Amino acid sequence: MKYFIFRTFDPMSNSEKPLIFITNDDGISAKGIAALIDVAKGFGEVVVIAPDKPQSAMGHAITIHHPLRLHKNSLFAGVDSYECSGTPVDCVKLGVYEVLHKKPTLLLSGINHGANTACNVLYSGTMSAAIEGAMEGVPSIGFSLCDFDYDADFTEAQFLAEKIIAQVLETSMGKGIAYNVNIPKSKAGRTIEGIKVCRQANAFWAEKFEKRIDQFNKPYYWLGGELENEDFGEDTDLFAIDHHFASLVPTQFDLTAYHELSKIKHIDL
Amino acid sequence: MKYFIFRTFDPMSNSEKPLIFITNDDGISAKGIAALIDVAKGFGEVVVIAPDKPQSAMGHAITIHHPLRLHKNSLFAGVDSYECSGTPVDCVKLGVYEVLHKKPTLLLSGINHGANTACNVLYSGTMSAAIEGAMEGVPSIGFSLCDFDYDADFTEAQFLAEKIIAQVLETSMGKGIAYNVNIPKSKAGRTIEGIKVCRQANAFWAEKFEKRIDQFNKPYYWLGGELENEDFGEDTDLFAIDHHFASLVPTQFDLTAYHELSKIKHIDL
Repeated sequence: MKYFIFRTFDPMSNSEKPLIFITNDDGISAKGIAALIDVAKGFGEVVVIAPDKPQSAMGHAITIHHPLRLHKNSLFAGVDSYECSGTPVDCVKLGVYEVLHKKPTLLLSGINHGANTACNVLYSGTMSAAIEGAMEGVPSIGFSLCDFDYDADFTEAQFLAEKIIAQVLETSMGKGIAYNVNIPKSKAGRTIEGIKVCRQANAFWAEKFEKRIDQFNKPYYWLGGELENEDFGEDTDLFAIDHHFASLVPTQFDLTAYHELSKIKHIDL
Repeated sequence: MKYFIFRTFDPMSNSEKPLIFITNDDGISAKGIAALIDVAKGFGEVVVIAPDKPQSAMGHAITIHHPLRLHKNSLFAGVDSYECSGTPVDCVKLGVYEVLHKKPTLLLSGINHGANTACNVLYSGTMSAAIEGAMEGVPSIGFSLCDFDYDADFTEAQFLAEKIIAQVLETSMGKGIAYNVNIPKSKAGRTIEGIKVCRQANAFWAEKFEKRIDQFNKPYYWLGGELENEDFGEDTDLFAIDHHFASLVPTQFDLTAYHELSKIKHIDL
């Protein structure tokens, strides 16, 4: 097993304990956030602000037409924890502007139950929270385990998260960057090969709506589909996961298509 | 007034009429979508699938925990129109996979009541719908008027939209691209100076939550704030709008931070 982390992080060697802000999109009661909190507690002070219900696939949504509720709970021993009625990005905003007494050292989102590879980064509440953190100038990491099961096994994901958190706290991350880390599902008798730094695969959903008829004879639709990958690059997140590596994609929030900009900017305005 | 469009588009010169798919995030009854439909009808067959209620700031959210409803209505003369219970991105998916009989020539989103400049592209349902269109391989444009008023004056915005649609139908747009067009609010006695092709400004929200107390003595929060711009570039969308130009930012869906990738990919994995 090869990792890109070789040094050990000793939080006590810093004059100040890191403040680690944790959120997710599966909700405060998900197994994945508890797994992440367990890891983060080893590095510093942890504050949790997470949705009070599942908020998967909420993307970068924020709540502007309704007020937000925020309740303190005592779910995690030794950790300040809050549940919020809003989206993952609402949680980040409430954390930064209302709850935390100082700028966090690190924002962690997840561990998500399910993959956030390829274009899923756009739909993902987990990654949108991390990108919101990056917009606030906070080094941010979204962790996702490629297993949608409520009772997924986070053991290997925790081990990887610990290594990556240590690396990021010890070195640094570019300004405005959020790491999108996906971890393959554990397979019996096979450990993860390592971590690959990747680009986002050009793979998209071919949707298949399931149309059903309700008790009033009216139709309704369930969104479903399959991720179709026609990107055969060996430097993508999907390639890494397919080969039982964890993938790490550095992401950012500037959607400008600079290649297109350079093509059309010459036009006389 | 200088535009980057000089030729006239004649849809009848094509053997086949363009199919134009229109959506928005302010909802089917907004004045802005009616203004856009009026313009688009001049170019070809128009099909509308838009949210049945306001869905502002829903970002790239999709609906996976609830079924979707889709109702045909007759709001717009000579136009097939549907309202959907979901988000703007749900509307695009339902349109492409359930409603339209062929791939649309163009997807138009808007005209939004309010600016979608700078980082707002990430929160915006209008632009997320356009980016979803780009992911489906459909040339897509989101239009936003920098005026949140329900009864905003869309006259100049319609004029600009017509010019841009003509240009895009006549030439082409890069694959996977969605244009983010913002149009300044009309000012008495002053026409818009023209259109500038821009990059997304590095400007972010400084949030200010308003905390209130309800009838049960429990707190709730309203999200509010101000867009703070410390990006002094003269090539940004905010600079263009500030100088009474419309801005056109070509956007894309690959969030990979290639500059960071090149910094960290050398690490021995």
